[in-house]
Amino acid sequence: MKITTIPTYEDIKRVHEAIAPYINKTPVLTSSSINKISGATIYFKCENFQKVGAFKMRGAASATMALSPEELAKGVATHSSGNHAQAVALSAKNYQTKAYIVMPSNAPSIKRAATEGYGAEIITCEPTLEARETTLKAVVEKTGATFLHPYNNYDVIAGQATCAKELIEEVGLLDVVMAPIGGGGLMSGTALTTRALLPNAKVIGAEPEVADDAYRSFKSGTMQYNTRIDTIADGLRTNLGEYTLDIILKNVDDIITVSEEEIVNAMRLIWERMKIIIEPSCSVPLAAVLQQPERFKGKKIGIILTGGNVDVEGLPF
Amino acid sequence: MKITTIPTYEDIKRVHEAIAPYINKTPVLTSSSINKISGATIYFKCENFQKVGAFKMRGAASATMALSPEELAKGVATHSSGNHAQAVALSAKNYQTKAYIVMPSNAPSIKRAATEGYGAEIITCEPTLEARETTLKAVVEKTGATFLHPYNNYDVIAGQATCAKELIEEVGLLDVVMAPIGGGGLMSGTALTTRALLPNAKVIGAEPEVADDAYRSFKSGTMQYNTRIDTIADGLRTNLGEYTLDIILKNVDDIITVSEEEIVNAMRLIWERMKIIIEPSCSVPLAAVLQQPERFKGKKIGIILTGGNVDVEGLPF
Repeated sequence: MKITTIPTYEDIKRVHEAIAPYINKTPVLTSSSINKISGATIYFKCENFQKVGAFKMRGAASATMALSPEELAKGVATHSSGNHAQAVALSAKNYQTKAYIVMPSNAPSIKRAATEGYGAEIITCEPTLEARETTLKAVVEKTGATFLHPYNNYDVIAGQATCAKELIEEVGLLDVVMAPIGGGGLMSGTALTTRALLPNAKVIGAEPEVADDAYRSFKSGTMQYNTRIDTIADGLRTNLGEYTLDIILKNVDDIITVSEEEIVNAMRLIWERMKIIIEPSCSVPLAAVLQQPERFKGKKIGIILTGGNVDVEGLPF
Repeated sequence: MKITTIPTYEDIKRVHEAIAPYINKTPVLTSSSINKISGATIYFKCENFQKVGAFKMRGAASATMALSPEELAKGVATHSSGNHAQAVALSAKNYQTKAYIVMPSNAPSIKRAATEGYGAEIITCEPTLEARETTLKAVVEKTGATFLHPYNNYDVIAGQATCAKELIEEVGLLDVVMAPIGGGGLMSGTALTTRALLPNAKVIGAEPEVADDAYRSFKSGTMQYNTRIDTIADGLRTNLGEYTLDIILKNVDDIITVSEEEIVNAMRLIWERMKIIIEPSCSVPLAAVLQQPERFKGKKIGIILTGGNVDVEGLPF
């Protein structure tokens, strides 16, 4: 049963129960040295330990589960060279159907291999957004598979919302809940859950300065577009969608932008002090906390670490 | 009260209780993809999440705790440029006494700063073993501090033994328990605990081929010395001591040596699949398992991951 309006907390609870067999309940970690440095008490929800190495598994499982038996039989399709591709591929496998993944020809061979490893069929296209969309359309027409959008989809958003639900259920009261913003699926889900469970908490998004579509959209109240996307936080190069902008405008208290240098410094801090591998996108909320120490001093903050799929041969340090 | 003969399991239990306030009970992690690749079921005891980022904290806490009030008042001393230095510094701080750490002038400034951060006094010397020992002797004579040897010390060995104790208490029956061998403190402690708790389990050490003093000592039954130490596993360049050789000869079933390439491959596998940061020494036992798949197929194996203090600017991939 598909969710056709902004997900309620009842929707999120139902989705969480339904996808539980297919996701990891990831740990919440703290670091006394990062608390000391930041002056805050930070609870990191570690989706780098999630299946396929990223929170995207939650949304993909939710959207796949929402399909009718007839739709499910025909398979699922998406275009992605990243975590969403692997998440859709594994979800299709879990629900015993086919996944068709359109990937640009310049996608890293390791991501291609991982996606094929889950049994997906890869369709290669030219590395342009237009080619991706045209190729996907052709695949959907030919196979009858259902397109699973990576974030502009209420079932996906309800899936991503289960991450903040686990965080808050484990930690309890928080003053602030933060997530990075790319397409806005995680931010939307995080905001919906936090509003329901912690009505007094602030919901704050974080975004790279050089891909600040969400920040400008939030401040102006209308959709703005990225003019640059040359951020190291490769998961955050995407623009908001119609659904996610709407939810963010209604449920997020503020968005903070951070520089590339701040992102790398925060990433290094998490690697060195917490001994866990996170992708650059994860470190954007911590970078925001460190940028504004007075604002966050003494606060209990929940931060969602989005994933750990990083090429260890191309590190920024 | 110092332990003056090979630690009994009663000693190890007493030490564990005494040092508990000063150490983390580190998690045991598994990886379905590493299990699939190895054909075994592997339980990784994650001492990379230990205080100071390494198991050395256990031994240093144990040895500090064993001092008399008079000794404790005069402080503790050691020579080390690595994890033992930080562990002794933090232990001294915990027991409210002074630490004097002799460090070679070429020690990485980050390690020096970390050790000073715990309040230790650093005494710099020429980067030779002779200069380290001479300088340490002068420091001990001048201050009256007690020298805490990094491994040839029964209190240290009893401390390191608490790591396998936590692992076995959490996981239960294991067919094999493995640790890497440098000076042999962790291997000795691991062997003593495993013999006591799991008399039917095999205790297997793993060592780099290019620093195989323990392998050759084990096979010949007499102390052999490293002629080369140019291994990436920087924690394993040390030679066995008299106490650790004795315990290893009596309690270890086998030692496997692995190539540098096998070490790097196993390290990368843990980074990429488990999303945790480990130092190269940690990956030596997994490299041994992957080298001999038939031997370990279907076995339940406990492996101690020793630490996570690695320079992220100098990675081998």
